[in-house]
Amino acid sequence: MTAIATTNWQPADVRPLSDEAVAQLDGWWRAANYLSVGQIYLLNNPLLRTPLARDDVKPRLLGHWGTTPGLNFLYAHLNRAIAERRQSTLYITGPGHGGPGLVANAYLDGTYSEIYSDITPDLEGMRRLFRQFSFPGGIPSHVAPETPGSIHEGGELGYALSHAYGAAFDNPDLLVAAVVGDGEAETGALATSWHSNKFTNRVHDGVVLPILHLNGYKIANPTVLDRIPTDDLRSLMIGYGHNPYFFEVDEDTDHATAHRDFALLLDTVLNEIAELKADSDNESPARWPMIVFRTPKGWTGPAYIDGKKTTGSWRAHQVPLANARDTPEHLQVLADWLASYRPAELFDDDGTLREDLAALAPPGALRMSANPHANGGALLKDLRLPDFRAYAVDVPAPGATIAESTRVLGTWLTDVVRRNPNNFRIFGPDETASNRLQGVFDATDKQWNAEYFGPEVDEHLARAGRVVEMLSEHQCQGWLEGYLLTGRHGLFNCYEAFIHIIDSMFNQHAKWLKVTNHIPWRRPVASLNYLLSSHVWRQDHNGFSHQDPGFIDHVVNKRAEVVRVYLPPDANTLLSTYDHCLRSRQYVNVVVAGKQPSPNFLTMEQAIAHCTRGLGIWEWAGTETLGEDPDVVIATCGDVPTLEGLAAVDLLRQHLPELKIRFVNVVDLMRLQDEREHPHGLSDRAFDMIFTTDKPVIFAYHGYPWLIHRLTYRRAGNENLHVRGYKEEGTTTTPFDMVMLNDLDRYHLVIDVIDRVPFLGSTCATLRQQMVDKRIAAREYTREHGDDIPEVKDWAWPAAHGASFGSGVAATLSTGGDNE
Amino acid sequence: MTAIATTNWQPADVRPLSDEAVAQLDGWWRAANYLSVGQIYLLNNPLLRTPLARDDVKPRLLGHWGTTPGLNFLYAHLNRAIAERRQSTLYITGPGHGGPGLVANAYLDGTYSEIYSDITPDLEGMRRLFRQFSFPGGIPSHVAPETPGSIHEGGELGYALSHAYGAAFDNPDLLVAAVVGDGEAETGALATSWHSNKFTNRVHDGVVLPILHLNGYKIANPTVLDRIPTDDLRSLMIGYGHNPYFFEVDEDTDHATAHRDFALLLDTVLNEIAELKADSDNESPARWPMIVFRTPKGWTGPAYIDGKKTTGSWRAHQVPLANARDTPEHLQVLADWLASYRPAELFDDDGTLREDLAALAPPGALRMSANPHANGGALLKDLRLPDFRAYAVDVPAPGATIAESTRVLGTWLTDVVRRNPNNFRIFGPDETASNRLQGVFDATDKQWNAEYFGPEVDEHLARAGRVVEMLSEHQCQGWLEGYLLTGRHGLFNCYEAFIHIIDSMFNQHAKWLKVTNHIPWRRPVASLNYLLSSHVWRQDHNGFSHQDPGFIDHVVNKRAEVVRVYLPPDANTLLSTYDHCLRSRQYVNVVVAGKQPSPNFLTMEQAIAHCTRGLGIWEWAGTETLGEDPDVVIATCGDVPTLEGLAAVDLLRQHLPELKIRFVNVVDLMRLQDEREHPHGLSDRAFDMIFTTDKPVIFAYHGYPWLIHRLTYRRAGNENLHVRGYKEEGTTTTPFDMVMLNDLDRYHLVIDVIDRVPFLGSTCATLRQQMVDKRIAAREYTREHGDDIPEVKDWAWPAAHGASFGSGVAATLSTGGDNE
Repeated sequence: MTAIATTNWQPADVRPLSDEAVAQLDGWWRAANYLSVGQIYLLNNPLLRTPLARDDVKPRLLGHWGTTPGLNFLYAHLNRAIAERRQSTLYITGPGHGGPGLVANAYLDGTYSEIYSDITPDLEGMRRLFRQFSFPGGIPSHVAPETPGSIHEGGELGYALSHAYGAAFDNPDLLVAAVVGDGEAETGALATSWHSNKFTNRVHDGVVLPILHLNGYKIANPTVLDRIPTDDLRSLMIGYGHNPYFFEVDEDTDHATAHRDFALLLDTVLNEIAELKADSDNESPARWPMIVFRTPKGWTGPAYIDGKKTTGSWRAHQVPLANARDTPEHLQVLADWLASYRPAELFDDDGTLREDLAALAPPGALRMSANPHANGGALLKDLRLPDFRAYAVDVPAPGATIAESTRVLGTWLTDVVRRNPNNFRIFGPDETASNRLQGVFDATDKQWNAEYFGPEVDEHLARAGRVVEMLSEHQCQGWLEGYLLTGRHGLFNCYEAFIHIIDSMFNQHAKWLKVTNHIPWRRPVASLNYLLSSHVWRQDHNGFSHQDPGFIDHVVNKRAEVVRVYLPPDANTLLSTYDHCLRSRQYVNVVVAGKQPSPNFLTMEQAIAHCTRGLGIWEWAGTETLGEDPDVVIATCGDVPTLEGLAAVDLLRQHLPELKIRFVNVVDLMRLQDEREHPHGLSDRAFDMIFTTDKPVIFAYHGYPWLIHRLTYRRAGNENLHVRGYKEEGTTTTPFDMVMLNDLDRYHLVIDVIDRVPFLGSTCATLRQQMVDKRIAAREYTREHGDDIPEVKDWAWPAAHGASFGSGVAATLSTGGDNE
Repeated sequence: MTAIATTNWQPADVRPLSDEAVAQLDGWWRAANYLSVGQIYLLNNPLLRTPLARDDVKPRLLGHWGTTPGLNFLYAHLNRAIAERRQSTLYITGPGHGGPGLVANAYLDGTYSEIYSDITPDLEGMRRLFRQFSFPGGIPSHVAPETPGSIHEGGELGYALSHAYGAAFDNPDLLVAAVVGDGEAETGALATSWHSNKFTNRVHDGVVLPILHLNGYKIANPTVLDRIPTDDLRSLMIGYGHNPYFFEVDEDTDHATAHRDFALLLDTVLNEIAELKADSDNESPARWPMIVFRTPKGWTGPAYIDGKKTTGSWRAHQVPLANARDTPEHLQVLADWLASYRPAELFDDDGTLREDLAALAPPGALRMSANPHANGGALLKDLRLPDFRAYAVDVPAPGATIAESTRVLGTWLTDVVRRNPNNFRIFGPDETASNRLQGVFDATDKQWNAEYFGPEVDEHLARAGRVVEMLSEHQCQGWLEGYLLTGRHGLFNCYEAFIHIIDSMFNQHAKWLKVTNHIPWRRPVASLNYLLSSHVWRQDHNGFSHQDPGFIDHVVNKRAEVVRVYLPPDANTLLSTYDHCLRSRQYVNVVVAGKQPSPNFLTMEQAIAHCTRGLGIWEWAGTETLGEDPDVVIATCGDVPTLEGLAAVDLLRQHLPELKIRFVNVVDLMRLQDEREHPHGLSDRAFDMIFTTDKPVIFAYHGYPWLIHRLTYRRAGNENLHVRGYKEEGTTTTPFDMVMLNDLDRYHLVIDVIDRVPFLGSTCATLRQQMVDKRIAAREYTREHGDDIPEVKDWAWPAAHGASFGSGVAATLSTGGDNE
């Protein structure tokens, strides 16, 4: 798609519409409504050239009519205003079940036929358009990735404004018309997203125009915002920081009047926006307008069906005539309803939209369904990434230096921010500093457009900045999604425990990616990158309620083609991993990394090799003889488990110097899966060579132990796999006490080895007892001193073990090509 | 605990406090602040009887000071008002990290020592109180189940008002003072929960008094609501339907003035509530007051530390003097800070609170920390449950009748509602009718206290009713949690796809239950019951974005002692299951059941036996010879998989009459686990007898197939287990096309049997090809007709197969005791 020739933010004269303009708007609206009803009901006979018959109606009627006519009305009016002002505009359909309306408008403005060449702008194309809707092998009934012009999936409600603001960030010329349904307005995510206006910059960002579509009803209930006093609703919108405009019609309102009134209101609102935007030196907060659009649910549909009020009631929500096929009276109501739009006035003999009506659509990429921002991959530019190798921590020997991994990552991100001042953002719920990414504040600030108290208190806050923080994980996720889907890059940093808040938003985004992978005209977008820190093993200021590593499990349930999970064990591996994530496309990358001081194990060169492999043997840590199977494999995944695993190896090397230990570390969790299950998966042969097929494998894992069994259950050696991981145990407040509580501590791992290596058994009874005693003593120490026992707290990988370091960390075999 | 002698909703004189009253309030406040600081910092020397020394300070300083003094101030003032009015009051601490404050107040009013007898009201008790806080083996730093008077865990933010309103439902005499932090106010859940006031009844429910605690800062940022114009905040609260009162102090405000002003304001507000409550015939919506409480963050703490503004800034959020132990100047600041509360004036020589201050607390159960509603199990009454057997559907033979399972459940729930008019509620996000529970509207209505348009449009709405519906899963979950934790019963019905919205809320509730199981004074509460319908296999009006069965996986990650998952295959099993759920305590019960017409397989007698076992062999469906191993086991779990599994058996019986098939159905998913993993788990012996150790098991499962492998991976026959379940595939709009898309359809199950029963192989090539062709034809039919092929749609279990029906559905062995 090409850039739009726009002249944005131009005021226009506010004057009543001419009769011709009203006729044109009304014609478009009727056409869109006709096509919407047609999609829901008709299998054949699209323009009713013969009397409507039973078999013209689909056998299963699925879809949502209620919200659609309002969406169509808005679309028609925005078309007019866009054409007049040449204003690049993105349309966000909060009531995403209004799918037929968006498809209808994209068909009317020509985009649909351009993208889907078999849906031609003629009678046969219209028949196909109708038939495919919510039909096996066809398109979803909701606004979906298949819908041109959409970045906002219909489905779970609540994210319209978050997505809209995400799209507006760093798009100073973009208007985002965001329709908010009064049903979704009841969701938590939507209720807080009105406050997004405190996080946008009037100069550097685009403008969101929220349009609250009050049609009064949900599936079976009235909506809250429709049933509070109008004065309260006005107060609410003012309280949210907006300047509200009210448009209200009912079933009796003359349509021409409605068009005239709304056109005046829309022009007034757009002029107000233009004025606020024109003051381009002013970065102070603006009170942006918004529109309350109160129209009857199912407007223009049958007023009553079987004597029950339908239009203007919840009965218009889905398919008002659910038995139209088999109820002759209902079939007649449907026929009359379709005829009420006077299709013969709208479409010519070939079934093509009449030219005078088609002229309402703005040209080319100014059409909302063709707006390039809605196919963000087409606008996506690679990030200019500084060479992460230059940010490496020095690792003269394994464990010889200490770093806070996320703080190191922050130094690199600082330069990512510097080099990409317009298309990279960091989102987080008040935790960017807590997660130790505060280095980025050397290069940027947190964008904040509410009251500002100056730098002494409001450190790192400014009117514009690359970091956006609000205490709402929903907002962080929604903003980032909107930002990515419009062709930019970013990451979301969050405490691990709280990321479950957006489980369902992740679901929907992952599904979007999965579907768009198979839609040729959708270009790949940047991956959605998580950085989960303050993870379950280090919840110092918090407690049991803050612990849950299950987001990984949740993510792994999604299609392998779109999810990646990384647990880098130290700072250099985190750098290498994140560089990879920021370069990738169409994935959700989950990266879990600690923020506490912790040993560095790999040089940057080794880290790159290790991350490229995704998992590998750390020869320097183990004691095996090359070319022979070890006695036991100690595998780790995650920074705390790796530390404990290495400490266990240290103990074993002291106490059982003859024991042949292989030490394996896993960075890329998906490597454990079978290559047939995941593109990153290892072949059985490679897996067996690393983990053996018959030796005990003691696996120390960051999350719920089940997941490792799940990922490996088809492997030959799975019977020998013994996983230690997070159990639902708490509370404690010292780190080692936490790992002990979950039996993941070094002493317990040694016990596991003794219990599972067949020849150790009784010969090691004394050592085993020592380990048990160590645990008891370590726990007792915490109860007495409130801190971890020094021998644990001060433990470091002994330099003496590191003698073989120079020989390299290489895995004993290549596990296949690049890990991407 | 005993009932409270209350005289609720009494107005009181509004007059300035006497100097003595001010001194008492201020003394209590100082004592609470002193104890809060002491908990965060001190290991020893609780009343500083010797100069503060390094070793008096904890080595790891963990906790949150910033919000605490405000919480203490409110607690003191509420104490005064409660004592004067004898008003039963529950305190909800939205800023739950203010744990030290709540513990301090419970210690001051005596409750703490009554419950925890080693934390005595003297010097040694105070030392223990300080030491245990956020200390290994001690108590969490947040408000937690261990905290007397709490039903609201500190941790994930956003649910204070939802919990508060849940507690207020059906407690007409209860005042719930709900402190909302200005950080949590940014979360989605909290932002929409203000609208809870449209769902309460002024006569039958209690009153929530929201107190928005504006202390201005989060971890590292200002808060949104503190930085919008005061007029906007007032508008926002009016928009939410409240009458806001503002209380504002800063660091310079004289404390006596603050006490006087707030006491007047609180009395005014409580009188306003009393007036609204006194109008007991008036069920119309009321505009309840709320308080904006603007105080400096860390009020009374050190103004500056190291020259940086601390009190009144985000720097006061956690532990302001993080290095007090090792920085002598900071140690002195801490000593001065503690001394500033003049502890010698507050506690006597024994370390006991002085009597004149202790007298501020209301008596007995009127103390907020001793309010019986905060230990709901103590108030819990068993539901009066109608005999579910009387609601059974008739099943003359397996599959001979059809029912919508949830609709049948609704008939029973109708009588549950009738018999329990004051302690049972149904919550849902606008889906109670859609989920076909609409039978309940014969007995009750949806409670709605916004504008009401009369019964023609507002069907089943009323000022009071047992069903509460708002389009916010967060609200449904939060209300239900608050309702259960205060000793009542209920259920949450939801579309399966959208229940992930409350994943993290489920986490926190499950953790609460897990912890309270080990707190002797916490009495068991009713289980949290989900009914997930409109499940993934039948998403008629929706699409791919609405499909995800992963909530089960999420739930199973929690401790076995608190989670239960049931997938009843038909109407009678659903009735039996739900009766069990509503009788249970301290669990989260997840029940997944379809709403679409589907065959009934078991008589009520059989259903009870089957549900009691949790899983069992359906002899009537299989073809095995008693006493011999079958050739193949077909196992199913979930209603659609059961239907397809039986249809596959039907095909196999037609085409391969000699094949010995065992048919197993699983209702209680946890039965699959090992008895050592879950109390419902089967022994290996019982499992092997049902599933065999060496025969192919084709398992058709409702959710992600992984879970079945995970639950059974230690079982002997796990290598022979082949699971079909939900994959991330869509979209389609006919039911059979959906199961085909996921390879769970009858034809594919037959193919699975052919592929896995060793002796079938090549002899069945023709049959196998037929099945492949059937699938292709079935799919083609949907593309042509938009509906499923009649032979599938009209399929029923053949009566001929049912000949053995009379011989009973009994499993071939008892699988252990009652399933509870």
